[in-house]
Amino acid sequence: MTAYDPQTDKLKEECGVYAVYNIENAAALTALGLHALQHRGQEACGIATFDGEDFHVRRALGLVDNTFSKASVMEQLPGSRAIGHNRYSTSGTPVLRNVQPLFADLSFGGLALAHNGNLTNAYGLRQDLVKSGALFQSTSDTEVIVHLIARSKEEKFEARVVDALKQVEGAYSLVLMTRKKIMGVRDPHGVRPLILGKLNDGYILASESCALDIVGAEYVRDIQPGELITIDEKGMRSSFPFAKKPSRFCIFEYIYFARPDSFMEDKSIYEMRKEIGAELARENPVEGADLIVPVPDSGVPAAIGYAQESGVPFELGIIRNHYVGRTFIEPTDKIRNLGVKLKHNSNRKLLAGKNVVLVDDSIVRGTTSKKIVEMVRDAGAKEVHMRISSPPSKHSCFYGIDTPEDSELLAHNHSPEEIADIIKADSVSYISLDGLYRAVGQARRNSDDPQYCDACFSGEYPIFLTDREEKHDKMKISRLKEASK
Amino acid sequence: MTAYDPQTDKLKEECGVYAVYNIENAAALTALGLHALQHRGQEACGIATFDGEDFHVRRALGLVDNTFSKASVMEQLPGSRAIGHNRYSTSGTPVLRNVQPLFADLSFGGLALAHNGNLTNAYGLRQDLVKSGALFQSTSDTEVIVHLIARSKEEKFEARVVDALKQVEGAYSLVLMTRKKIMGVRDPHGVRPLILGKLNDGYILASESCALDIVGAEYVRDIQPGELITIDEKGMRSSFPFAKKPSRFCIFEYIYFARPDSFMEDKSIYEMRKEIGAELARENPVEGADLIVPVPDSGVPAAIGYAQESGVPFELGIIRNHYVGRTFIEPTDKIRNLGVKLKHNSNRKLLAGKNVVLVDDSIVRGTTSKKIVEMVRDAGAKEVHMRISSPPSKHSCFYGIDTPEDSELLAHNHSPEEIADIIKADSVSYISLDGLYRAVGQARRNSDDPQYCDACFSGEYPIFLTDREEKHDKMKISRLKEASK
Amino acid sequence: MTAYDPQTDKLKEECGVYAVYNIENAAALTALGLHALQHRGQEACGIATFDGEDFHVRRALGLVDNTFSKASVMEQLPGSRAIGHNRYSTSGTPVLRNVQPLFADLSFGGLALAHNGNLTNAYGLRQDLVKSGALFQSTSDTEVIVHLIARSKEEKFEARVVDALKQVEGAYSLVLMTRKKIMGVRDPHGVRPLILGKLNDGYILASESCALDIVGAEYVRDIQPGELITIDEKGMRSSFPFAKKPSRFCIFEYIYFARPDSFMEDKSIYEMRKEIGAELARENPVEGADLIVPVPDSGVPAAIGYAQESGVPFELGIIRNHYVGRTFIEPTDKIRNLGVKLKHNSNRKLLAGKNVVLVDDSIVRGTTSKKIVEMVRDAGAKEVHMRISSPPSKHSCFYGIDTPEDSELLAHNHSPEEIADIIKADSVSYISLDGLYRAVGQARRNSDDPQYCDACFSGEYPIFLTDREEKHDKMKISRLKEASK
Amino acid sequence: MTAYDPQTDKLKEECGVYAVYNIENAAALTALGLHALQHRGQEACGIATFDGEDFHVRRALGLVDNTFSKASVMEQLPGSRAIGHNRYSTSGTPVLRNVQPLFADLSFGGLALAHNGNLTNAYGLRQDLVKSGALFQSTSDTEVIVHLIARSKEEKFEARVVDALKQVEGAYSLVLMTRKKIMGVRDPHGVRPLILGKLNDGYILASESCALDIVGAEYVRDIQPGELITIDEKGMRSSFPFAKKPSRFCIFEYIYFARPDSFMEDKSIYEMRKEIGAELARENPVEGADLIVPVPDSGVPAAIGYAQESGVPFELGIIRNHYVGRTFIEPTDKIRNLGVKLKHNSNRKLLAGKNVVLVDDSIVRGTTSKKIVEMVRDAGAKEVHMRISSPPSKHSCFYGIDTPEDSELLAHNHSPEEIADIIKADSVSYISLDGLYRAVGQARRNSDDPQYCDACFSGEYPIFLTDREEKHDKMKISRLKEASK
Repeated sequence: MTAYDPQTDKLKEECGVYAVYNIENAAALTALGLHALQHRGQEACGIATFDGEDFHVRRALGLVDNTFSKASVMEQLPGSRAIGHNRYSTSGTPVLRNVQPLFADLSFGGLALAHNGNLTNAYGLRQDLVKSGALFQSTSDTEVIVHLIARSKEEKFEARVVDALKQVEGAYSLVLMTRKKIMGVRDPHGVRPLILGKLNDGYILASESCALDIVGAEYVRDIQPGELITIDEKGMRSSFPFAKKPSRFCIFEYIYFARPDSFMEDKSIYEMRKEIGAELARENPVEGADLIVPVPDSGVPAAIGYAQESGVPFELGIIRNHYVGRTFIEPTDKIRNLGVKLKHNSNRKLLAGKNVVLVDDSIVRGTTSKKIVEMVRDAGAKEVHMRISSPPSKHSCFYGIDTPEDSELLAHNHSPEEIADIIKADSVSYISLDGLYRAVGQARRNSDDPQYCDACFSGEYPIFLTDREEKHDKMKISRLKEASK
Repeated sequence: MTAYDPQTDKLKEECGVYAVYNIENAAALTALGLHALQHRGQEACGIATFDGEDFHVRRALGLVDNTFSKASVMEQLPGSRAIGHNRYSTSGTPVLRNVQPLFADLSFGGLALAHNGNLTNAYGLRQDLVKSGALFQSTSDTEVIVHLIARSKEEKFEARVVDALKQVEGAYSLVLMTRKKIMGVRDPHGVRPLILGKLNDGYILASESCALDIVGAEYVRDIQPGELITIDEKGMRSSFPFAKKPSRFCIFEYIYFARPDSFMEDKSIYEMRKEIGAELARENPVEGADLIVPVPDSGVPAAIGYAQESGVPFELGIIRNHYVGRTFIEPTDKIRNLGVKLKHNSNRKLLAGKNVVLVDDSIVRGTTSKKIVEMVRDAGAKEVHMRISSPPSKHSCFYGIDTPEDSELLAHNHSPEEIADIIKADSVSYISLDGLYRAVGQARRNSDDPQYCDACFSGEYPIFLTDREEKHDKMKISRLKEASK
Repeated sequence: MTAYDPQTDKLKEECGVYAVYNIENAAALTALGLHALQHRGQEACGIATFDGEDFHVRRALGLVDNTFSKASVMEQLPGSRAIGHNRYSTSGTPVLRNVQPLFADLSFGGLALAHNGNLTNAYGLRQDLVKSGALFQSTSDTEVIVHLIARSKEEKFEARVVDALKQVEGAYSLVLMTRKKIMGVRDPHGVRPLILGKLNDGYILASESCALDIVGAEYVRDIQPGELITIDEKGMRSSFPFAKKPSRFCIFEYIYFARPDSFMEDKSIYEMRKEIGAELARENPVEGADLIVPVPDSGVPAAIGYAQESGVPFELGIIRNHYVGRTFIEPTDKIRNLGVKLKHNSNRKLLAGKNVVLVDDSIVRGTTSKKIVEMVRDAGAKEVHMRISSPPSKHSCFYGIDTPEDSELLAHNHSPEEIADIIKADSVSYISLDGLYRAVGQARRNSDDPQYCDACFSGEYPIFLTDREEKHDKMKISRLKEASK
Repeated sequence: MTAYDPQTDKLKEECGVYAVYNIENAAALTALGLHALQHRGQEACGIATFDGEDFHVRRALGLVDNTFSKASVMEQLPGSRAIGHNRYSTSGTPVLRNVQPLFADLSFGGLALAHNGNLTNAYGLRQDLVKSGALFQSTSDTEVIVHLIARSKEEKFEARVVDALKQVEGAYSLVLMTRKKIMGVRDPHGVRPLILGKLNDGYILASESCALDIVGAEYVRDIQPGELITIDEKGMRSSFPFAKKPSRFCIFEYIYFARPDSFMEDKSIYEMRKEIGAELARENPVEGADLIVPVPDSGVPAAIGYAQESGVPFELGIIRNHYVGRTFIEPTDKIRNLGVKLKHNSNRKLLAGKNVVLVDDSIVRGTTSKKIVEMVRDAGAKEVHMRISSPPSKHSCFYGIDTPEDSELLAHNHSPEEIADIIKADSVSYISLDGLYRAVGQARRNSDDPQYCDACFSGEYPIFLTDREEKHDKMKISRLKEASK
């Protein structure tokens, strides 16, 4: 249930967002909420508050509790309103100026903003803005939105926001804070999640429901695709200012990104994963299996589902060391080869002589799968079968998930049989796309107009990839490299 | 499989030790080994190496990889021999001068030493030593051993060590390093574990076998109670210099302290725990149970065993947040009350309306159990039964485990029925002492001469508590408080 | 020769700037240059480089050598071109986003810029820019210049710079760096210094000549008021694009701000100060004086001049502790009262029974003068006369020097006689304004059109104070407070 | 008046000590006192306090105010009694376990101790102690004293201290603190200084009187050679428990080590230095001299004395940058050659065409003198004469001053004429030994029994160099190297 680690060959979720309106100690609640959303971004985090007079902000590299567990920091973030953000950086060393929430001093007052998702026409918009004299302080696509709000000819703040968002394409769940209000908005396709909660007289917006539970807040509902929520002293209002588009929620949230204790669209993520595991067992049984072993920790719910459906015992055949925080120094090749043991160890006695079914949620490059299979074989397993609770990952995501190029995705170029050869497994099978849709409650995938965004499996991108098509990569952002310690 | 956290009401293991002889990059291997033993002590760690000329040491507060993942540190620890140590501090703020390995410049040359366990006559010995002019640099019981070695009238180093250890009482697994050799020794009762491994032409001593796996070393055997191992350029030698005493290995290592992927006495910890869970199910079934839910993470293997034996589904009804590293700032009572959610969250949909069996390995003060039960009830469970995979924890440990006073142990003063009332569970049951012995492979507990140390359950202490009986607490060590940042 | 310290009651210089063109290791030279200019700003510093491909920047709080003496930092600043900046922050805790050099990604490529001085119409310009959608990332006046350059309709970069600077009022010495060139420019009045140096085939721009000496560069000349220097692969070019205005170099640079080993307008600062001291002795002799004692360290050159002119011995009657770096914890009133001794101590034997002439360069609020006089009296001095090598400081500076409000300046409300009473001196005298002009080489002060900016003494401000007059303080910048550690 | 810097070719004083009895906030006073004594040791410092119940200690690398200006540190050092210490480390990287005050838990209670000086028979004593089982925690000679106190057969604490000190040889000024008392003691020759002060009802012991001035305490008198002072609730007592020996106060304290505002033996250091400068002028005049220029900052008082005696103007021909804190990164040879400018710059206009007399207090290896002369010549000086306010430094000190081996001392192997050639000066002259004695108030040096320790000039060592003679360097301390970050 934890997020990406390069050593485990998982994709990275882009971000988590959080907002609090009218609850005492809003920064502390936001810190707790971001902590619960830590799996959605571990490289940087930030909180902005408004205390009725001034805005306050703290942005930092590293995990939430590195910074926001310090009394000295929290004292500097007063107020009953706040927004917060977790992120990872898409390339190179993360730099502080890209960390959100962004803040701007606009003509009508201050604005803080945090974004989960990715815009697909940001480069083009940026190019135009820079030509007309706009100064960008970051390289993030999110700043484009702030400039568009700043330059909007509309008078009212909400109208400015709508004006700005009508110009952008891509996936976004945003939270915004001004001197008067908190706002939340999801893009018309609803690719990224955003939910609404309530605590006493206050409101909370969050990427996932687990971030409500941590503070004892009540889950109210999901924000709808294309919905704009405004919360101020007059209460909460909802509007749908954009042209209606078909819903395309990211199906990978069910498979891997979201925490198993979260709800999305009224469904328990844990139960969805067990159901996916059960469907996987029905589609891809293993004859003579002795044990169902999850690849920890994300594979556990699907493995439980697989085990219950197949009647084969669920066992912890691989033990994870929970203390891995950073990459170890590995000064010689001899030690470097020990790599994978840093995170996992096999449960030798259990595996020796057995027909083992490993359950994992995805294979990206396959590097870790290969090590895991090797470790299980070294422990004496007779057969090792890999079962994957997602369809083959064949295409890059441009809507907020950091993915290698298509060509680096193992399944882009190889069949399951070839992959089995590569990772030295006796067999490798994936759940089918239709099986996945069945498991999450659809009769079948509607092939003309799929109910979810499944572009990473199908290659069918629901939102136009403008920057990519227009080859905006020819346009260079002047590279400023910030020296770090 | 993780160790103590005050928030989870678990006991703390005292220490982990490690030693490497004749393997290139001994410090790196030791860092990896200590990393695998991190659950045995998270508050401080240290590594000493010998490079054929000089000794090198680095001791630090915090987790192993905070310090020993830095190239700049590792470069300063050259050599193919090393010893290392993980610890927690028994009281107050941990201070660096108590962190091991200890080092001393003796008349025959340098000596580094690391200790897992606790001496029961250290105060008295210290009092005598101070009276005769010994200067102590720490408040740890371990330093007594170093002084006794330094003052021994024996000529040969091994004889000095034996001379010193004959004067001490208590539990100890020690590793020592001189200019010539590495030594390992277990106390005559063998309370604390110590195992021997081999990697190419080199040797490794470690508290647990998982610390061999991480570096790809081969498990050779457990060091025997009362055995002294010496490794030098002539190879490895074994001797049994102490009067033979009955073996009393700590049975709690099986229940909770050791990592589930370790072996001890040729037994898989994971399988022992499953077997304990199965025995618990046989002794204490729950009628009409819908789900077996482990209290994560340490309760998982016993819960799997319980579920397999009872035929009731195993489910992750409680999700743990893996990012909790430090205590959060909780500035108001309102937020403080949210406490437990920092680590755990319930899986609401799964639990609603169900008869839930929670499996945990121990109840110390009961504070966390109460919160867990409350959380499960809040999620809508119909019934909540707590099953504990150890007998009631009624007595303090004086052999290396940090335990509250007897009077603070919930089971010291309360029956299981009373405990059920206190933690608001529908029922609470523990495995019996005989059931526990059966589960770990004995026909029954030999009541005249128990096969294990089970003093925390039975109150029968196999090693005399000299300091405690002689009221040495009247003797004060001059308190030096080191100011920290 | 050191700069402001609140404990010594000195004014603060705003900034130092530096630029390097075509010299290997430009960042290292810039670090050395900023080190030599450390007295012009101790609270923050930054260096930007261009390596032919990318820009690199590092900005940090604290002294230059805290950050730029680290190899790990310098390695990240490659290139043979660089600009740098020292600053102090004008209010509150210094924040990183206000630290220069500023960097912007403009339509024609990257731009880095550093500024010494202060604009007097920045608020108004900022208000207009924000209204038209500009996003400011800092609260510094300097950023206005960057926005004006970005929005200029001119095509060529130099024309854009000129277009922008024609809109600003105030004092500025700027250095700029683009992918092609380095530029330096002084405002038409030439209030702040900027000099040109040469090292082999490369060029250097710096606030003072001591920053050339430190790297062994040759002093070429002062940049002229209103002059724009451009250095690129075609060499160096000079232009005067602004309407000609009368020169108004800051006369306080001679008195206090500049380092005594610097030259300005071909004059040695040390010799100017000695000459000022000599003039002070002629104007304000002390009958029966036994000793001339400088208030260390800035009063030394004037005291030497005073002593040589008067024939009274120069003596170190007050010793300065060079180790004072930060304010000491002073937990009780009793200790707080010891304050001044942290920096200075009297030379008791020397002073006892003597008629002492103290020479200092300025009195701002008078707090330190009072303590110094008291300390000298406590040492047994018979008489204590204070001689000040500047005219009375009566008016605030708005051109780049941090000054208290007029009402807080002791001389704004009090005559020298009253000041003598307040600081318990036997007499206090200042050099006259005409005397000061004579000392720096003018026949007299031209009262219609003074040769220097002496607004802090005369109240005659050569550049219009637009923001102040237009009460732009009504216009609020949305306050964003960045939480620090 | 500052202490050693390798870049300035000065010797290093070993230590400063401080003790406070019965003054509220003793730690804060000690921090101030150590700050005033910072020139006596910049690499590490420590403070121990006693609050009536517990001892508290904080030891740290770096300058006093790095650590002891933090409220969080000072809060942890309660009590009205304290001792403190400044030190530099004699070799290699300084390590924390060598930082004083040392603390020991002895049979009669705690003991804290700080030492200025150096023992000349410490190795031999250590060897004996280790042979009998003593454990050393540091490599410092001071710890020998603690062991000897711990092992003394005497009953009373004072008798133990005397017993211990009778066994050691060398130079020492010690302060000690127990639960009952503060003690101060100087070795029978009185090589290192120690003075007594009073503040209200409390007492202070300090290495120099400037450390009394900083806290407003009154100078009472110098502790006498061989005197032992005890301060407890019964007041202050003095005794002379050692055999009487001739006084041998370190004459270099007058020349360089002590701060110019301190008194020693009732003499003002500043006035002594001026007198030495005047004597130097009488012994070694320079015909046709235009300027007397001090090498800053330590040469200033002697230069003033030289200038006053010779009637030649005193001028600041060399300006020191006060911001140099650490060595700059100098990545290329080209930049490395700029080295000396980091600290000093010449005042070109002043020096051009002049006959310049440089006054410095010592030449150790001559490296800096060479750079200074070159810099002055580069500024256009016609002639450059070097005058040194000490006799030639020909011999190492073994009594507490870190000195290169004899063979590395420039004057050990070269005449003044040869030195002039080496450093490219027109002439080099030193004050004579007799001249020095005259300047400090003696009719002449008593050659049979010199009034001061002048071993570094004369080679006549007043205290036997036992370790050196007995070749104890053959005896190796097991080298433990502590890894640092």
